[in-house]
Amino acid sequence: MNSESTPHRPVGRPREFDMTQALDAAIRIFSEKGYHGTSIAELKAEMGLTAGSLYKAFQDKRDVFVAAYDRYKQVRADLLEQALCSATTGREKVARIIGFYAMSACGETGRRGCLAIGAAVELVLSDAEIAARVGRHNRKLVTRLEGFIRDGQLDGSIRHDVDPASTALALFSYLQGVRIAGKTGELENQMLPSGEAILRILD
Amino acid sequence: MNSESTPHRPVGRPREFDMTQALDAAIRIFSEKGYHGTSIAELKAEMGLTAGSLYKAFQDKRDVFVAAYDRYKQVRADLLEQALCSATTGREKVARIIGFYAMSACGETGRRGCLAIGAAVELVLSDAEIAARVGRHNRKLVTRLEGFIRDGQLDGSIRHDVDPASTALALFSYLQGVRIAGKTGELENQMLPSGEAILRILD
Repeated sequence: MNSESTPHRPVGRPREFDMTQALDAAIRIFSEKGYHGTSIAELKAEMGLTAGSLYKAFQDKRDVFVAAYDRYKQVRADLLEQALCSATTGREKVARIIGFYAMSACGETGRRGCLAIGAAVELVLSDAEIAARVGRHNRKLVTRLEGFIRDGQLDGSIRHDVDPASTALALFSYLQGVRIAGKTGELENQMLPSGEAILRILD
Repeated sequence: MNSESTPHRPVGRPREFDMTQALDAAIRIFSEKGYHGTSIAELKAEMGLTAGSLYKAFQDKRDVFVAAYDRYKQVRADLLEQALCSATTGREKVARIIGFYAMSACGETGRRGCLAIGAAVELVLSDAEIAARVGRHNRKLVTRLEGFIRDGQLDGSIRHDVDPASTALALFSYLQGVRIAGKTGELENQMLPSGEAILRILD
């Protein structure tokens, strides 16, 4: 979790709940019902907290959301690192990222959807701080994809006439969109093949 | 507008407002603030309606949303037809659809975002009827892309070893995702080049 959003706990006062479990519950309900669609009462129930515990750890619903968002991004980043760790060429790295998102678009995770995309859709226009967070994460992924494309051009696994910047944004858009496509639970058997198909962009 | 959602008006009672203008206002506010983030009071103000007029034409907020959604899809479909009308080959048709979405991801339209994606993110899990609508529109676009790919394979503009179904879903995902990417207003100068880049999937 990013330190700038870690809820502060008074020194010497033990927290009477597991913050990780509570935030995972918040991630679930925010992903399913959206920010505006989730009430504080539902958050308390899902997170297993009393009003006292919740307001001791968080200022308000938005503060829970920001902490849940940061944890979500961290969990997803860790899973992505695992998926990437044995990839060697630039092309393999791009393929692993694509496979990771296409797989996430399936099943329960796919239908629940991506908390970060939800934040972009619901909050980017009205909340400058969350917009900055979303923008920062987006830029980071686009820059990473661009780097992997350049790596692939150096190691010979990606064609040299592929433009790294615009191709990175095209791939990033696919990654976001496949999570939207996964929301309805349809076309699920085509998610992984669609990931194979998008890789042709590197040929 | 789909007839199943057209608000009914008592026979002989003239409507005292312009339904098209009112729904366009509803589209704007729902796109900007989301379904749950928009109140009936805000809808009344934006649509320029009294409570009486609003409740004469619509049952509730959801009913306004469904009518706005149907109008949004119709307006977008008409604009897409204009973009497609002079395209001849299958590849040109795919390129026009991609260009249409990439262009929509820029500027004010891009930052406001897509009402249909908003509906998918916020409502698909909790509202079976809206989920069915979103699913129907998604399938229609994927099927159309698949058809254009097959056309392109017949007219020689698209390679024969491109798999139509999975490539159509990859392109559909790009189309959804580029609208998400447009929400933050960043990377805007790369939107159209990203559309050019994604076309390599057909080579």
